[in-house]
Amino acid sequence: MKQKKPLILISNDDGYQAKGINCLIEMLRPMADILVCAPDSARSGFSCAFSATTPLRLNKQWEEEGVSVWSSNGTPTDCVKLALHLLCKDRKPDMVVGGINHGDNGSVNTHYSGTMGVVMEGAMKHIPSVAFSLCDQRSDADFEPLRPYIEDITRKVLKQGLPEGTCLNVNFPIVEGDDYAGVRLCRMAKGSWVNEITTCHHPRGYDYYWMVGHYVNDEPEAEDTDNWALRHNYVAITPTRVDVTDHDFIAHCPL
Amino acid sequence: MKQKKPLILISNDDGYQAKGINCLIEMLRPMADILVCAPDSARSGFSCAFSATTPLRLNKQWEEEGVSVWSSNGTPTDCVKLALHLLCKDRKPDMVVGGINHGDNGSVNTHYSGTMGVVMEGAMKHIPSVAFSLCDQRSDADFEPLRPYIEDITRKVLKQGLPEGTCLNVNFPIVEGDDYAGVRLCRMAKGSWVNEITTCHHPRGYDYYWMVGHYVNDEPEAEDTDNWALRHNYVAITPTRVDVTDHDFIAHCPL
Repeated sequence: MKQKKPLILISNDDGYQAKGINCLIEMLRPMADILVCAPDSARSGFSCAFSATTPLRLNKQWEEEGVSVWSSNGTPTDCVKLALHLLCKDRKPDMVVGGINHGDNGSVNTHYSGTMGVVMEGAMKHIPSVAFSLCDQRSDADFEPLRPYIEDITRKVLKQGLPEGTCLNVNFPIVEGDDYAGVRLCRMAKGSWVNEITTCHHPRGYDYYWMVGHYVNDEPEAEDTDNWALRHNYVAITPTRVDVTDHDFIAHCPL
Repeated sequence: MKQKKPLILISNDDGYQAKGINCLIEMLRPMADILVCAPDSARSGFSCAFSATTPLRLNKQWEEEGVSVWSSNGTPTDCVKLALHLLCKDRKPDMVVGGINHGDNGSVNTHYSGTMGVVMEGAMKHIPSVAFSLCDQRSDADFEPLRPYIEDITRKVLKQGLPEGTCLNVNFPIVEGDDYAGVRLCRMAKGSWVNEITTCHHPRGYDYYWMVGHYVNDEPEAEDTDNWALRHNYVAITPTRVDVTDHDFIAHCPL
């Protein structure tokens, strides 16, 4: 019998119990069957890391009509690989969705983000993939204003697909109520993290370090960037490629 | 007094004791002062991951005229960040070099590779950065045939720099003696990993999983790709961008 609803595979880097992923499940379950495979606790900053040396586990957490939720001790990328191989044998997902991340994945955060790891993995497996992130790291962040945008983008991608090898990185600013200025298609802003190390002194006498820091936007006036869009209350959609080759370099080799 | 030699920061994902990084140190120390900050053990597949929740340590392992070697419990990306912040206060590196990796970092391995994490971090910190990898995972792999190529590429990049936001991903095939066919500037081949999960049964009664699999090249005849170059005994140089935006998508939005 033909499946009536599409199947969406969801993962994240905040863990299967985070508010963001549970809001996402509720937003998408009316339009699709939902398979969740997500880390058993927070894996922020895990990028596209996979576990080369750790034995991985997979546990069913809960199941209801149209939704099943699994957790793993692996990375976000591991979760997608495990789900595709072990939980999707009979039915390939029509879409991979990452998030909703508690925090901004614009600009270079793309490279560090485990949420982006989820959708890069989806794109590398030839599945249309979209990451959603809210620029609010609080565990009780309000995701409700994102609902119509997430529904709309997901519906469009389910219907039309995405170009092979391209996924979407969608970031939402924090706004009062649902007062978004609109939606903009953006490029990654150029910027970098500074003062990333805080030194602490252990009572046993040695120094240790926490990775912290803050982000500096190198081109705050560039209106075509994700950082600009977010600062001006737009929803920022950044199409992101699996092929990271610098084709200009090849065409005009400077070496 | 002006520094006569340039400073090269080296890291990897195989750990500071691996043969590859120690061969690299020996190859580059005649042309530069060398600062090594590398993981204290193997961190293969760590991508651009950084440690958001782990307290990091930094230990000096050894020091000789022109070379100092530090290790950390962090990821390859953490190592670069720690070194730049804590060990390079008075003297910014002229170049970041990753490797020599024990294993192929062509095609989509770019996204998973901790060696590429090292040089993406270097590029994000505006430092010319080059990763070297040998398609040989053995711990006693022979890196000596790579020497003239590594010396030449490093010398060129030290002299001419690289375009802002672009690093180099250099992969070497295994050849008899030093019988390379030449050097080719390449793009990432399209391909993906399949059969990535092996299921094992624990004596206590549960299943666990190892991440393994093999790579399938989707375009084996494409002569402009890294996979083709490596299979035909060429040294493959793939220029790799920090900006992963799909600019074509923005120009011709398909949604």
